[in-house]
Amino acid sequence: MSSTKFATLPAPPYYAVIFSSQRTQADGGYGETAERMEQLIVTMPGYLGAESLRGPDGFGITIAYFDTEENIRLWRDHAEHADARMRGRKEWYSHFEVRIAKVERAYNLATVQKA
Amino acid sequence: MSSTKFATLPAPPYYAVIFSSQRTQADGGYGETAERMEQLIVTMPGYLGAESLRGPDGFGITIAYFDTEENIRLWRDHAEHADARMRGRKEWYSHFEVRIAKVERAYNLATVQKA
Repeated sequence: MSSTKFATLPAPPYYAVIFSSQRTQADGGYGETAERMEQLIVTMPGYLGAESLRGPDGFGITIAYFDTEENIRLWRDHAEHADARMRGRKEWYSHFEVRIAKVERAYNLATVQKA
Repeated sequence: MSSTKFATLPAPPYYAVIFSSQRTQADGGYGETAERMEQLIVTMPGYLGAESLRGPDGFGITIAYFDTEENIRLWRDHAEHADARMRGRKEWYSHFEVRIAKVERAYNLATVQKA
């Protein structure tokens, strides 16, 4: 089980890349690559934060937040990330879904209690 | 650890309610209420599906998908759900973030392999 905690984000609008995935049993290089991607994404322009969980059955949800669609494309087109995704498709994931969404509204426990 | 698997969704656009939360230690009625909400949400107009994970440290991500913002409001305003959220704010969650997002694009392993 790996897990991150709450992303601290600016006021909307911004974009979410919702990545749901099922890991295979194949582990060759997965951990190192995942760690490298975590180091790399924080250096990308417009990256705002991420929240991530993976369960013991290998099902995971990662949501990465960016300021604009253009910066999501820059991350998609980063050569190391593109290589990692290709390995992911071939080896590490038996299925995944990617959904690109524009966050329009946001609130949290503190803002609800003030309201 | 509780987990659902992939939601089967129509082509975009549709809406995502992204709920990230940290559970408290308080368990009074949480499990029963969570189960009741799962039964209730599938009866709501425009509900499309959900993906959900919670880790052993109590951090969780649930994404519920609806066809329109209006149907998200109907779910928010359902009396039983409103009561459950009030108990959640007071007892079950030490923190949460809610983000309402419009899904504009989506793809998955199969569509990438065909492309």
